[in-house]
Amino acid sequence: MGNGFFMTVEGGEGAGKTTLIVRLAEWLAEQGYEVVMTREPGGIPIAESIRAIILDKANTAMDPRTEALLYAAARRQHLAEKVLPGLERGAVVLCDRFVDSSLAYQGYARGLGIDAVWDINRFAVAGTMPNLTLYMDINPEIGLRRIQAANEREINRLDLESITFHRLVREGYKLLPQRFPGRIVEIDADSDEDTVLRQAIQETSSAIKGFSHLNVK
Amino acid sequence: MGNGFFMTVEGGEGAGKTTLIVRLAEWLAEQGYEVVMTREPGGIPIAESIRAIILDKANTAMDPRTEALLYAAARRQHLAEKVLPGLERGAVVLCDRFVDSSLAYQGYARGLGIDAVWDINRFAVAGTMPNLTLYMDINPEIGLRRIQAANEREINRLDLESITFHRLVREGYKLLPQRFPGRIVEIDADSDEDTVLRQAIQETSSAIKGFSHLNVK
Repeated sequence: MGNGFFMTVEGGEGAGKTTLIVRLAEWLAEQGYEVVMTREPGGIPIAESIRAIILDKANTAMDPRTEALLYAAARRQHLAEKVLPGLERGAVVLCDRFVDSSLAYQGYARGLGIDAVWDINRFAVAGTMPNLTLYMDINPEIGLRRIQAANEREINRLDLESITFHRLVREGYKLLPQRFPGRIVEIDADSDEDTVLRQAIQETSSAIKGFSHLNVK
Repeated sequence: MGNGFFMTVEGGEGAGKTTLIVRLAEWLAEQGYEVVMTREPGGIPIAESIRAIILDKANTAMDPRTEALLYAAARRQHLAEKVLPGLERGAVVLCDRFVDSSLAYQGYARGLGIDAVWDINRFAVAGTMPNLTLYMDINPEIGLRRIQAANEREINRLDLESITFHRLVREGYKLLPQRFPGRIVEIDADSDEDTVLRQAIQETSSAIKGFSHLNVK
């Protein structure tokens, strides 16, 4: 993994991941770190082609396991072409969603099984797991209301699924810290933006301390 | 899996898989079975789109793990849309290459590890494994010479790889019977076509006996 620091931000819809990531990246840059801010498929051509198959509305016959394997494939390629080179250079790679999203959404909420989805993702990441994951916890009702109120983006397919599904996603996320001890920190995403950022900075500062070879500009 | 009988034919390049499969399908049809003769991606649109990404010559940056996950994804979709419906109807589904190809080529010869590639394929097949696999064993030198002599099809990328690689593929295949006891039967593909067919029919007759609910026309 080189000398870089790999962190991911996770959470349900409307938790405020994007806002936090932008502000956290600014803070990291102010500290002098090289920051790679990304999300899958992240402009990587092969990963984009794979994602296009997943999102193609003509593909209504897609089996849930096919979908999970395609997510893992796009993840691998984005990792190989964007995350790993950043880590090799000693950068802080800050990724919006990663393995935990697949575990919570496909593994738990869609019922494929966390163990089964972890099997294919373990293959995809081949040992490169985040040094720190910030899980932004939000009540699904609040999260979805935020999206609609802010009208930041169109309501997508996932938004429209029943609130029951989003509750399952949250339950799935809550199961992950016991499987990955020490990696995942939960943040109360119902707090105001400044409080969320402050907590995120605190956790990041603390976790990044041991990484003495980071690429400081 | 319904009441069908699922069989696969495996082997290195030039082993004569296609010839055997066509003749075996004829024989099965003569016995009155409904036969589904197929190979991945098998005209299934989603599987074809996935295969197109793998084969796209522009995708030189494709990571070996991405490739293995894409093969598993195409396999899943072909299984869901073609193999499983056939088995549900009580047909004999005869498939040219399946999981064992990934284990021998990606897992062993390309060095990803048989266990690791099995992890993702176990997820893809979700319990649907062949009732019988005919592994056509051939010395790689003989196999490749056959392809060139017969000029049956263009020499492809795999053909051009070093003979060392094809020896590794054969070694990989030879490791599989101990992992899947009772499923895989080795056939000496260096024999003449009639001898190969006779042995294949013998093994198929014997394995198919227990399947009393097959769809006989």
